[in-house]
Amino acid sequence: MAHDIRIVTEAELRAAIPLDTGAVDVVEGAFAALARGDVVMPPVMSMAMHDRNAEVDVKTAYIPGFDGFAIKVSPGFFDNPSLGLPSLNGLMILFSAKTGLVDTVFLDNGYLTDLRTAAAGAVAARHLAPPDVTTAGVLGTGVQARLQMRAAHLVRPFERVLVWGRDARRAAACAEDLAATIGIEAEICTDPETLVARSQLVVTTTPATDPILRADWLHPELHVTAMGSDQEGKQELEAACLPRADLYVADRASQTEVMGELRAARAAGLMPEQPAELGEIVTGARPGRQSARDITIADLTGTGAQDTAIATHVAQRLGDAGTRIRT
Amino acid sequence: MAHDIRIVTEAELRAAIPLDTGAVDVVEGAFAALARGDVVMPPVMSMAMHDRNAEVDVKTAYIPGFDGFAIKVSPGFFDNPSLGLPSLNGLMILFSAKTGLVDTVFLDNGYLTDLRTAAAGAVAARHLAPPDVTTAGVLGTGVQARLQMRAAHLVRPFERVLVWGRDARRAAACAEDLAATIGIEAEICTDPETLVARSQLVVTTTPATDPILRADWLHPELHVTAMGSDQEGKQELEAACLPRADLYVADRASQTEVMGELRAARAAGLMPEQPAELGEIVTGARPGRQSARDITIADLTGTGAQDTAIATHVAQRLGDAGTRIRT
Repeated sequence: MAHDIRIVTEAELRAAIPLDTGAVDVVEGAFAALARGDVVMPPVMSMAMHDRNAEVDVKTAYIPGFDGFAIKVSPGFFDNPSLGLPSLNGLMILFSAKTGLVDTVFLDNGYLTDLRTAAAGAVAARHLAPPDVTTAGVLGTGVQARLQMRAAHLVRPFERVLVWGRDARRAAACAEDLAATIGIEAEICTDPETLVARSQLVVTTTPATDPILRADWLHPELHVTAMGSDQEGKQELEAACLPRADLYVADRASQTEVMGELRAARAAGLMPEQPAELGEIVTGARPGRQSARDITIADLTGTGAQDTAIATHVAQRLGDAGTRIRT
Repeated sequence: MAHDIRIVTEAELRAAIPLDTGAVDVVEGAFAALARGDVVMPPVMSMAMHDRNAEVDVKTAYIPGFDGFAIKVSPGFFDNPSLGLPSLNGLMILFSAKTGLVDTVFLDNGYLTDLRTAAAGAVAARHLAPPDVTTAGVLGTGVQARLQMRAAHLVRPFERVLVWGRDARRAAACAEDLAATIGIEAEICTDPETLVARSQLVVTTTPATDPILRADWLHPELHVTAMGSDQEGKQELEAACLPRADLYVADRASQTEVMGELRAARAAGLMPEQPAELGEIVTGARPGRQSARDITIADLTGTGAQDTAIATHVAQRLGDAGTRIRT
């Protein structure tokens, strides 16, 4: 039986799909479903190609009640920059959850991953940040530094954003972008300690393997989202940050203890108990922030459930975008 | 950096890509690479959606020396027939093995799987069947019954094909198709024992869960390829067939002992040793058939290496077929 499959490019996605509260809401729904336990999410399929200095990861998840499920393929070819190509590419495929037929192929080069990752940051900020955030800060100056601040501003409309990065020029460019896209005051901080001291909401977005945020810097009325660590060797927060917080929340505990901030804390003998997961805070199964003065930490490593949520959401919003192929 | 991605439909593939010795040769190369041990092939990713009576499997493999690697997604939605849709669908994506960029999306609905599965049968027949095959027989009447006989005829140009199936009408239709496509005499057999007795090459292509080919029926100068069993519950050959043969060959021993004919044999306490793999016969690392009178068995469950091989092969043969999308 013939049916149409839609092919959508990165440029078409960028034109049609903004980072908005709709994206945040649908990713929040994915976390809630994860917490209810009715999501099927196999372990990540990973294939290393050592002679190519490359790796490819495949993620998927089925969320009952969603119209579709996504399969995401993320190749990382780390010699690509010498060819003038980005290291990370990939695509996402949305299948009908009713028939298994291919619905949409998103040739997105990771754009939907960027969106759903930023949306998860907003979900964390919505449920964990202090009610009044006037200043937000970001450690890191890349794509996620920009997107995390834009996403957080949707749920906590702060007046000022602070940017710190190892490279002052990149930090300036990031601050300039944020001032323009959010339309607020943006400042560079030359040291991360000052940035944390002045902020009520901090997001870490670096590939750090040595911690860049110290436990001593944590102060009342602060929420920190650490989203840079997604592999075993990475760590942005000093391990002592986690027990020092009033509340530590994982996106998926079974992942954060392997590739998130929880890994180093566990290795240091800290945080022996089963942490709360973000979805449990969303559904109310476990308590979130108790007072404005609490210190909270969210540890985000990325889940296939977010991919299924964003792909389903985007497919419904695309209008006439893309190329239809009759099969 | 913009590049073009090609989207190819099942109809375009069927028009452009025949089952020929080129396909057999490239799949043979994949088995040889598997035997040399330089293929990276992660375990199958499998996601069950019980409330949908559905499952999706993802396979991949990297074969050094091949220009690309494939990722195959195979959804099985077993209530689809009640909607007038086939149960099995899916697609295959070919990535550059140099850059990880998406090269081609094959919206093939399993056609490339059909091709590479038939090609593996031909590789087995090429290396294991007696030199002179005048009569070949097939148990089963579906797509693979047809393709396996066409593929086997490429490497052993037999004069006559025998067909057995539980449903006489389907067996007649299959025999008629084979007579027309191969251009040889085709007969229906009303019992499988007679079919085996008259054949030098037999392929079993059924979803049987109770064996349909008895050990007593095996006779000198016979090769049997069993390719129907690809899940734990399936079995086409009586377990005693395996030790009775002079040579048993697995496509991948780690798979056939879980989902192929080797599973039942092992469960019956037979075949304790590590069997030869098809690639080892191809490379000469282990001996194949020793005399025309030998009885040989090949047990094929399907590998991601075959998917990478067929996808790479097909991409090189497509000419102008497909739709190019600029990304």
